[in-house]
Amino acid sequence: MNYSVGYLGPKGTFTQKAVDALFPDEQVKSYQTIPLCMDAVKFGHVKYGVVPIENTLEGTVNMTLDYLIASKTLKVVSEIVVPVEQHFMVDPNNRDRWKETDTIYSHPHALAQCHTFLSNEMKNVSVEPFTSTAAAAKHVSDYPERSIGAIANDLAAKEYGLEIIRRNVEDVTNNHTRFVVIHKNDTALRVKSMPIQGFKTTFMIALPTDHAGALHQVLSAFAWRRINLSKIESRPMKTGLGHYYFLIDVQQKMDDILIPNTVAEIEAIGCQVEILGSYPQYSLDALTEQDLDS
Amino acid sequence: MNYSVGYLGPKGTFTQKAVDALFPDEQVKSYQTIPLCMDAVKFGHVKYGVVPIENTLEGTVNMTLDYLIASKTLKVVSEIVVPVEQHFMVDPNNRDRWKETDTIYSHPHALAQCHTFLSNEMKNVSVEPFTSTAAAAKHVSDYPERSIGAIANDLAAKEYGLEIIRRNVEDVTNNHTRFVVIHKNDTALRVKSMPIQGFKTTFMIALPTDHAGALHQVLSAFAWRRINLSKIESRPMKTGLGHYYFLIDVQQKMDDILIPNTVAEIEAIGCQVEILGSYPQYSLDALTEQDLDS
Repeated sequence: MNYSVGYLGPKGTFTQKAVDALFPDEQVKSYQTIPLCMDAVKFGHVKYGVVPIENTLEGTVNMTLDYLIASKTLKVVSEIVVPVEQHFMVDPNNRDRWKETDTIYSHPHALAQCHTFLSNEMKNVSVEPFTSTAAAAKHVSDYPERSIGAIANDLAAKEYGLEIIRRNVEDVTNNHTRFVVIHKNDTALRVKSMPIQGFKTTFMIALPTDHAGALHQVLSAFAWRRINLSKIESRPMKTGLGHYYFLIDVQQKMDDILIPNTVAEIEAIGCQVEILGSYPQYSLDALTEQDLDS
Repeated sequence: MNYSVGYLGPKGTFTQKAVDALFPDEQVKSYQTIPLCMDAVKFGHVKYGVVPIENTLEGTVNMTLDYLIASKTLKVVSEIVVPVEQHFMVDPNNRDRWKETDTIYSHPHALAQCHTFLSNEMKNVSVEPFTSTAAAAKHVSDYPERSIGAIANDLAAKEYGLEIIRRNVEDVTNNHTRFVVIHKNDTALRVKSMPIQGFKTTFMIALPTDHAGALHQVLSAFAWRRINLSKIESRPMKTGLGHYYFLIDVQQKMDDILIPNTVAEIEAIGCQVEILGSYPQYSLDALTEQDLDS
């Protein structure tokens, strides 16, 4: 079978939600790690890769960004924001005696995010970490005779035939995960079935090593052009803890004048600038991102 | 038994390395999640908590920072940088036939970080994600009759009696994890056995909602005082994706004039400022952090 889209698996994770929305009609294939998924795009096994980039339970931003920067050939061509909702679920077999649950399985971050629910309502239940919320759900469905439960999303409940007992058990609602679509060239991905929420350009900027106040100067190049930032993050260079680069997202499409002029000005003060992508944003709920500065 | 120090477990992880160096003579207790460990400090079950805060394999920065900000009462009183080295290990039983290994277990991030080793030298071996590198090592030691291996650190090899076959199998050497020590008041933790590498103050700054260019203005308050930043990161507020705050680390101790004046100036432009800690830095290797701007 020819797969056109790869994603960070397993099935039933939030990444699959993003993939289903972006590529409803394509053959998709799951990969076990972010680099394996990105290599699949690089070597042409799949055309697109979908990986988490921010605020995620199942993966890490850093890994996606590191491999994107190291690859040199891959670009971000789209982004999608997915609301993250965690539910407590058991096998239908245990629906009526869910209060007897003695062990709850989930990803460690999900267990941490549902701290209040677990310490108030599931006081004497032990928690067991699993590599993903979906794997925890699968484990619960594998042992219907045991008094166990999982914390996972509704896709996992559906995939593994579990019954949701309590919805939204996370401490803080309004959690979201951002996913990016990776492709070998920078042609923006347009999804017909969803409205575009906005546009974004992601910069990787390395500062000159001997220039005090360079970050402040870099931000001036954006500020006086009234280009709004939606994210800034300093990251250690892989050569050790001592050197840094910056990832900056601006809410602006690549254009003929504004962005190229900003890049030229930042390069003129001795910085190295790379554009990791200029792309449309989609969202699976009504919320859209706002500016950092407004 | 009275425990004075809690840490993110399990045994044999990089967090334990940090704990061993900082608290060689104390009774320590491991916790399954970051919030459980931080609650133990908050409710006085332990005096200090040690949790990862940056570039970690076993936990996440975000969770530590989120709970630190939400707690209001907990402070960072020390920081330690631990080099992260991953090794390939098997049961001593399989030392001579390690080439027959059919499955390698590790944390998904560790598997991803050892991508080159796995795809070049372990081509037909399947990889299986585990919740921690230490748990993977334990699993390998539990089944000495199987042809399996783990990727984990030397502490895990020692803890579970495994034999290291290949050292430093990660793609990029020079990986580090930063851990912070959490305490109920802001008295800096001094460790007699290690030299102090420097001092740091961590700010949480929330921008006013209707003020364009506020971030640039905030950085001016640091820049013109020649206070060097060593980290900046924007984070979404928990009220949704649309609002942000900033985490800024500066390489400067809390003092009588410079820091209070900076805070007053930033508050004067309508920002909310909180100091999450002002603390000494320690390191388990010779590298120290440098400025963002120099």
